[in-house]
Amino acid sequence: MAPTAIHNQQDVDLTAAAIQRKEAQPTKAAASNGSAVAPLDASKLTYNLTKSPRHVPSEAEANAGNETICTDHMVTAVWSASAGWSTPELKPYGPLALMPTASCLHYATECFEGLKAFRGYDGRLRIFRPDRNAARMRMSAARISLPVFEPAELVKLMTALLAVDGPRWLPRDRPGSFLYLRPTLIGTQSQLGVQSPKEAMLYIIVSFMPRMDSPPGGMRLHTSPEDMVRAWVGGFGYAKVGANYGPSLMATQDARARGFHQILWLYGPDGECTEAGASNFFVVWKRRDGKKELITAPLDDKLILDGVTRRSCLDLIREKLAGEIEVTERKYTIDELLEADSEGRLLESFAAGTAYFVCPISQIHHRGRDVSIPMGPEGQPGEVTGKVKGWLGDIMYGRTQHEWGVVIPEKE
Amino acid sequence: MAPTAIHNQQDVDLTAAAIQRKEAQPTKAAASNGSAVAPLDASKLTYNLTKSPRHVPSEAEANAGNETICTDHMVTAVWSASAGWSTPELKPYGPLALMPTASCLHYATECFEGLKAFRGYDGRLRIFRPDRNAARMRMSAARISLPVFEPAELVKLMTALLAVDGPRWLPRDRPGSFLYLRPTLIGTQSQLGVQSPKEAMLYIIVSFMPRMDSPPGGMRLHTSPEDMVRAWVGGFGYAKVGANYGPSLMATQDARARGFHQILWLYGPDGECTEAGASNFFVVWKRRDGKKELITAPLDDKLILDGVTRRSCLDLIREKLAGEIEVTERKYTIDELLEADSEGRLLESFAAGTAYFVCPISQIHHRGRDVSIPMGPEGQPGEVTGKVKGWLGDIMYGRTQHEWGVVIPEKE
Repeated sequence: MAPTAIHNQQDVDLTAAAIQRKEAQPTKAAASNGSAVAPLDASKLTYNLTKSPRHVPSEAEANAGNETICTDHMVTAVWSASAGWSTPELKPYGPLALMPTASCLHYATECFEGLKAFRGYDGRLRIFRPDRNAARMRMSAARISLPVFEPAELVKLMTALLAVDGPRWLPRDRPGSFLYLRPTLIGTQSQLGVQSPKEAMLYIIVSFMPRMDSPPGGMRLHTSPEDMVRAWVGGFGYAKVGANYGPSLMATQDARARGFHQILWLYGPDGECTEAGASNFFVVWKRRDGKKELITAPLDDKLILDGVTRRSCLDLIREKLAGEIEVTERKYTIDELLEADSEGRLLESFAAGTAYFVCPISQIHHRGRDVSIPMGPEGQPGEVTGKVKGWLGDIMYGRTQHEWGVVIPEKE
Repeated sequence: MAPTAIHNQQDVDLTAAAIQRKEAQPTKAAASNGSAVAPLDASKLTYNLTKSPRHVPSEAEANAGNETICTDHMVTAVWSASAGWSTPELKPYGPLALMPTASCLHYATECFEGLKAFRGYDGRLRIFRPDRNAARMRMSAARISLPVFEPAELVKLMTALLAVDGPRWLPRDRPGSFLYLRPTLIGTQSQLGVQSPKEAMLYIIVSFMPRMDSPPGGMRLHTSPEDMVRAWVGGFGYAKVGANYGPSLMATQDARARGFHQILWLYGPDGECTEAGASNFFVVWKRRDGKKELITAPLDDKLILDGVTRRSCLDLIREKLAGEIEVTERKYTIDELLEADSEGRLLESFAAGTAYFVCPISQIHHRGRDVSIPMGPEGQPGEVTGKVKGWLGDIMYGRTQHEWGVVIPEKE
């Protein structure tokens, strides 16, 4: 028998309703059997430090191979539907043991975040707006049917890990360097069958990552092929779930084989510009009314990631270039971009995200046509791109004191 | 610099072009450095048998818990871009060690297949059309940027595993029983960054699985909420990749909490009927011209899985009920279904797939309206559903000798 109470709202609008319901879960939620389940609690973190600290490579050494080099430690916490979150543990970095039937290996029950930790020119270690990444990770977890948590607890766990590994792996004599934080949440229940996992594992690792913000000559984009769409209305393009990435690799690999760096993902019959690779995409152009404008895709269709760097760029440009440049979040198409090119109105373009930071774009290839986009002199970013990159970098590396740059108290 | 040779075909139609190119790879392909890379070769399989065979539970015991029970052994083969496929190994079932940076844990570089092994009433062990699953797995692998292989080699590896574990885990005194085969392919390269993995692992496991083809009173479906779309044109709904499953769990969990078994996934502004849960969806109705028709969604938009059970149902009904019922693969909408209900023309409905086999559907809930669908007397499947289920079951369990039922030669 079907239940008599029909939640008509959920019939139409489940994503929002279900995420809100999940996010509204109290930190001390009751399990279905009535017993209390434990929330994620960073204050309980246990420390199991390595007895054999590894060699800390130079940045060049670390990024030379086909394997990501991580620091000495990682943080893990396991979750079960019946007990909630276990005590989180800081322990030596190493392999995970997963049963071949683990949910994440079959059904992509997985989500992650990416943040950088910066060694400032003032000697201090910072992360950038971690509260935003933690909140987004909770949203992603809800979307992919994984357990939620209080975002502040995730921030505390990241902070604790960096406090331990920061001093040695990102030492004071490497100002201007960064490491990369990757909080990851995976469904671990060892049961085949398409269902929400009843067991999961959160882990946080810290790794080296190459600098990708200054490809020689700028970033070159290839528009997505007509038969390949990254995300769609009613999908999950706005969530940082694994399912957004694997399916995009084929197009990216093809573009790279043809000399481009990333795909400019178009959407819909009109070819709306959405994301550049796994970064947000921005264009600076002169409008037909003569006004200078920074344009980027809007968030309201839930097609694109609500990037922390994206939002920070928009905020800073709105604040610091008010009156000089209009900042617009709206749908715009590849044809508008081609027209602006034909009419000589294209001024700059850049991609923004944690991995690529703020990366100038010099070329877009679309259906046999190449659009060249101006950059600054001698391969430098254009004016707006360079300014926003500078402002953000100054916050990240402590040349500007700003609430977005959160200082990590380090253990020495 | 962008390359001068622009492959205009790939600009528009990459999926087909790239999959064809990948599928056309010779079994002895040359790596980019010119050295030969090894193909997947089942004839090299090595055997490392368990020294402590586990207790074989009854079907009821095996399916009682929250963990899938697998047989004593599994087959694994690892792949690298530089060396190709390693020697496959049959070895004791157990956990996989994956680095926290493994591609599949972040980017959903994973695909799988599902098949059943049947203990026949004639005492023989069979699998059903394994060539089709193996070919589909190769297509899925190409779509998710994982290595390809000769499908026949995968069939040989599945056969070898069943030859070892079949006699004890699916014994002759359990005719009419089945086990479930899950070939899985995951990206294992330990490198963060959105790129095609250069290392992967294929594994095959055999497990128990509950019988799901006869829920009391029939299967009840809830249509998908308006803000949730399973697959889209230009996406990957036709491939058996993890990315199709995790994002669907939220809607399924919500439907289950409200007393339904699965989601009937609608597509597009008109609400085309596509899949029921992770199974193909079929309706038997009387058309307005009085003709009896079996209708199901077409494959040409690449929205739905090209199900082996789906295809087998269509083939058998076309062959055995020619003249009695027309078989149609075309787009049809939820409104057509509601109309047929209002006009008393709905005759039967069923879901078909490996897990649910051929499962009669008794109810569809759509936006506050409940559609009841006739079944046979005493909770039995309707006439067409029952017939096709019987024909297929007879092939699977050896009551009918048919080329689709492939006998596994067992080691005793």
